[in-house]
Amino acid sequence: VRTLKITLWYDGTAFSGWQRQEEARTVQAVLEEAIAAIEGTPVTVTGAGRTDAGVHAAAQVASARIESRLAAADLLRAINARLPEDVRVREVHDVPDTFDARRGALSKTYRYALWLGAEPGPFLRHVVWHIDDSLDVEAMMQAAVALDGEHDFAAFQSTGSSVATSVRRVLSSRLELADLHTGLLLPASGSPDARLLCYEVTATGFLRHMVRAIVGTLVEIGRGRWTAQDLKRILASRERAQAGPTAPPHGLMLWKVHY
Amino acid sequence: VRTLKITLWYDGTAFSGWQRQEEARTVQAVLEEAIAAIEGTPVTVTGAGRTDAGVHAAAQVASARIESRLAAADLLRAINARLPEDVRVREVHDVPDTFDARRGALSKTYRYALWLGAEPGPFLRHVVWHIDDSLDVEAMMQAAVALDGEHDFAAFQSTGSSVATSVRRVLSSRLELADLHTGLLLPASGSPDARLLCYEVTATGFLRHMVRAIVGTLVEIGRGRWTAQDLKRILASRERAQAGPTAPPHGLMLWKVHY
Repeated sequence: VRTLKITLWYDGTAFSGWQRQEEARTVQAVLEEAIAAIEGTPVTVTGAGRTDAGVHAAAQVASARIESRLAAADLLRAINARLPEDVRVREVHDVPDTFDARRGALSKTYRYALWLGAEPGPFLRHVVWHIDDSLDVEAMMQAAVALDGEHDFAAFQSTGSSVATSVRRVLSSRLELADLHTGLLLPASGSPDARLLCYEVTATGFLRHMVRAIVGTLVEIGRGRWTAQDLKRILASRERAQAGPTAPPHGLMLWKVHY
Repeated sequence: VRTLKITLWYDGTAFSGWQRQEEARTVQAVLEEAIAAIEGTPVTVTGAGRTDAGVHAAAQVASARIESRLAAADLLRAINARLPEDVRVREVHDVPDTFDARRGALSKTYRYALWLGAEPGPFLRHVVWHIDDSLDVEAMMQAAVALDGEHDFAAFQSTGSSVATSVRRVLSSRLELADLHTGLLLPASGSPDARLLCYEVTATGFLRHMVRAIVGTLVEIGRGRWTAQDLKRILASRERAQAGPTAPPHGLMLWKVHY
């Protein structure tokens, strides 16, 4: 028996999220089936983060215990040959048997892409949240930074969640104006007014829908409903109803898992 | 009655090409249906280029004659409200009644994206042709330039085509190494070896599958099967069998129509 660390990326559009469910197409299920076909027996994989339906990953990490003696590079090719095109393995490494992709993760980074102004068009529609409005980006940037540090994020947790504590430590939280340049590959947006904002957050742990609730709240601040200072009041309230709506899943990407 | 010039972009992945066909989802059909819903009567649009199934457009141009008195900006919004997400109108302009998107086009520019080396991953798979090989890019660049000017392109035309002449005038034909940078938006490819090549060709007219046959031939030159000099021999042969295979449709994009 050996333990593998598998790094994979996926377009979450056609998946009902990471976690295996009856009757649903999930990333965990298709990965387990691909590895099981090589092993000849059922295999369970553990993912670092349970992404929701529609959420993407640039570098999700999964761990698996298998018997196969194939070299890591050959396993990578064999797994990819059995995976659908919307999920691909990027790296396979042998790791000590104590490795667990979920419990071993020190922190995770998520990115959320916001597209402001003219339509993002047909090529980027699945990876950005389009807001047909101008926003106060300065206020949003200030608010984003205010989330740095250890806080009780109960106001940014989906109702009905049951976790031991809603305190989480945010190592970095910032909003950046990003470059629209996609080289020769994709046509740029039709309008020079379009702007791409990228919210990037790194934390030792996340609550259910936490990033999307933060982004939904930042957008309300950008719209002028609240000021950056109101964010502290919302945090302190510990009430989900005080924060903004949950942003749609398709702007979100699990960017990196840190070990 | 007024005449409109409609500029649109589409992700060709889920379309059976531009041209209306029975029982198939085509861009022309969905555009005509969207405009007909506003007009209240059937409408026919004329497209500048008939893109094949899977081929994309950054700026296809269509002309239509309609009765509606809505301002152009309102028409744009009304049409987009009725179009699916994978095709969007970028611009609507009133033009003289003599305007015809197909016959009025002076030239058209197509781009073809080739991704060499490590997998392009789940986010770009529908817009690049992945070649898991290193190619002689210098030889391909030389060959591309040799297509400049007026030539009989019979060797690059799908068999079974019937057009008056297979002579076409190429205004520009070049292959460039493109930038992989997609800003903060999309994760870069997993490997530093990946390279993106962009073939861009502008001509006063194109034969059926001409760009894809050229790209298929350039790739054979890149693989060392032929030299850049062989391209002239292939052109002169006027035989489709002498040229390389037709490249897949999903790397191709109608980039611009010049009037």
